[in-house]
Amino acid sequence: MNIDLRLLFSDDAEVMRENAIRAMSKFALKKGIISFSGGMPNPETFPIEAISRFAQEILQEEGANALQYGLTLGHTKLIEALCKFMERRQVFGVAPENIIITNGSAQGIDLVGRLFLNPGDAVLFELPSYIGAILSYANFRATLVGVACDEHGVSLEDLKNKIRGLRHEGKPIKLMYTIPNFQNPSGVTLQWERRQPLLDILADEGVLLVEDDPYGEIYFQGVDPASLIPIKAFDKDHNVIYLGTFSKLLAAGLRGAWAVAHPDIIRKMELAKQVGDICGSSLDQRIIYRCLRDNLIDRHVPVIRKFYEARCQAMLAALEKHFPEGTRWNRPRGGLFVLVTLPEGMDSEALLKMALDEYNVSFVSGKPFFVDGQGANTIRLAYSKETAGNIEEGIRRLGELIKKHLCTPHPPLKPAAAR
Amino acid sequence: MNIDLRLLFSDDAEVMRENAIRAMSKFALKKGIISFSGGMPNPETFPIEAISRFAQEILQEEGANALQYGLTLGHTKLIEALCKFMERRQVFGVAPENIIITNGSAQGIDLVGRLFLNPGDAVLFELPSYIGAILSYANFRATLVGVACDEHGVSLEDLKNKIRGLRHEGKPIKLMYTIPNFQNPSGVTLQWERRQPLLDILADEGVLLVEDDPYGEIYFQGVDPASLIPIKAFDKDHNVIYLGTFSKLLAAGLRGAWAVAHPDIIRKMELAKQVGDICGSSLDQRIIYRCLRDNLIDRHVPVIRKFYEARCQAMLAALEKHFPEGTRWNRPRGGLFVLVTLPEGMDSEALLKMALDEYNVSFVSGKPFFVDGQGANTIRLAYSKETAGNIEEGIRRLGELIKKHLCTPHPPLKPAAAR
Repeated sequence: MNIDLRLLFSDDAEVMRENAIRAMSKFALKKGIISFSGGMPNPETFPIEAISRFAQEILQEEGANALQYGLTLGHTKLIEALCKFMERRQVFGVAPENIIITNGSAQGIDLVGRLFLNPGDAVLFELPSYIGAILSYANFRATLVGVACDEHGVSLEDLKNKIRGLRHEGKPIKLMYTIPNFQNPSGVTLQWERRQPLLDILADEGVLLVEDDPYGEIYFQGVDPASLIPIKAFDKDHNVIYLGTFSKLLAAGLRGAWAVAHPDIIRKMELAKQVGDICGSSLDQRIIYRCLRDNLIDRHVPVIRKFYEARCQAMLAALEKHFPEGTRWNRPRGGLFVLVTLPEGMDSEALLKMALDEYNVSFVSGKPFFVDGQGANTIRLAYSKETAGNIEEGIRRLGELIKKHLCTPHPPLKPAAAR
Repeated sequence: MNIDLRLLFSDDAEVMRENAIRAMSKFALKKGIISFSGGMPNPETFPIEAISRFAQEILQEEGANALQYGLTLGHTKLIEALCKFMERRQVFGVAPENIIITNGSAQGIDLVGRLFLNPGDAVLFELPSYIGAILSYANFRATLVGVACDEHGVSLEDLKNKIRGLRHEGKPIKLMYTIPNFQNPSGVTLQWERRQPLLDILADEGVLLVEDDPYGEIYFQGVDPASLIPIKAFDKDHNVIYLGTFSKLLAAGLRGAWAVAHPDIIRKMELAKQVGDICGSSLDQRIIYRCLRDNLIDRHVPVIRKFYEARCQAMLAALEKHFPEGTRWNRPRGGLFVLVTLPEGMDSEALLKMALDEYNVSFVSGKPFFVDGQGANTIRLAYSKETAGNIEEGIRRLGELIKKHLCTPHPPLKPAAAR
């Protein structure tokens, strides 16, 4: 190449970083590895037969129309069905003009970034938060500000403090990003009592809330679904951009997530998507529509809940048994993740290298989930992929590795110079 | 809504404009309308039976894996098959590391914009050029500079002049965008003899060429395919980012286009796509792979060529018969489009309104295809959608409309104040 790319890359391109989760995906193929890294749903939960039947019906009944370019906003019938589906989530009054279909929630997150973020604008994130959203908004060179969380979710006190601090600096605050239910990576659910106050604080400050809700339907026994009602349900003034997806309820490879927001926002998202990729997969959207039309979701979701609850219990039992004193973790009531906190000073990235090389176990270091650089001693464990037996064995190995390094005089601390 | 969105939208969002082609898509459903507006392929050309069979086979043979998240770069087997497919286009030596699968070429165009464009950076466009690419790069607030074209494509003299002018102003020039074969909207093909020199001029200036080639396989009888060899085939130094798609050869709704470029560029595109939408449709990519594996493309492309050639001839014959003196148009040797130039002073946007309201015919005004504001008296006619009979009738009506306004003392000129 005789052109120097460094002279050509944009300022945005300069800051693009690798997603630590996606970086792990190459290890997923390593022989015999026990993987707690990928947050992907277990393909055993995908309703293949129904999807296969729908695909066939679509091509027979709709023929070539099912393979033509679609509207940028998405397949009209799917949008109409989603208005109704939102009622199941206790969000009423959603009209087609409030919805755009996106290529995964990731595209929703990204389109919102395009719409609102100039370099330097502030976005508020839970500590920790989803790495995909963090990287997306980092790529727009936004200022990412972390808000403290406890076992009931985001601290409203700290939220107010952070907003005050940013106002003091004169920073425009555009968005807050939250996963209210069974958060990725912490597994924490935002307390019901905090939902309306959170919204009020943001509305007063003129900050939009991006509510990403991929796990709200994956709750375990004993959880009251009313406690998982999206913040969007409280959103009389259209200050919430709600992101929904069937990646975890149907099949991740079918790209047909959706955003619910004020029509003025949807309209701009449509313009951004028009140039971004014109339209989503016509076939995928039609398959998802039929899954909704035939109530497949209703029948299928209970199966999914049970499936993940069993794996979660296996992981919690194994952690109890194999992880040493000084480590702690949350006990999720839904979703796909456990976040483990290791003793202070332990470096999970150094640990990960050893886990991969010597113990054939993968996980994700917690650090990139914290926008403030905390979390070096945390690890995210996904219980979605492995069987109960593998979960027990993988956690046993990890426990052994952690114990070994707790006892050595030189725990795997990252050298200061390399930080 | 109690938040003022105008205070929140980003600078990029402020400039987002409607795509004139997509704006027409709502008229596509108007009863009895004869549409020359959409550049979409005709669904009659989609090999539905084969696609339907492949979909079934995939879900039977690959099961849930076919519905899981895929790699951001794309389905590995499809990438490998595309390396070989590029040889058919006379581009040799393409390795998997040179390819990323995108959600339509539109996503390829957009990812390239993200990688390279800071506000104000210059992008060179043919006059006229594809509106989707124009809008994408306008949304990055790039400076769009038009280069004159003749019946053999871009003028190398004018290209040098434009580059010189931009250098004089101190503008960074990042990209040139071209559709070398049966261009959208002009139908023009870049002369074979100009391809290497074009590349040399850009390489000398350190400008990357984005080569968008959706129509290179859709040539008519008598055309030597060797004259359509992509510029990428001449590209020893990796200065070309080649964009390929099967939207017009298989089915537009299957989202699985691809970009071919230097690995350093592909790697950055992967990072941008990681946050942009994680991955494309797993099912769509697998269907396209099987179409390649089973040589469906080879068998199907000749059918497509004949199909569009017949429609093109119908349109050219109708134009000859019904359009008045003072109008002129190109005679395409492939692709989907004819660009008509109306008498100077006639405004195609005003004409379009009357065509829709009074004549039930749609087309696209040529103006938004010209980055320099020219082209108000041009119209793009796509011959892909309608039957030969409808083409004759639609062109007859348009001819009548144009004649009527040629004879009136007040042709449909747009008032100066509204420009």
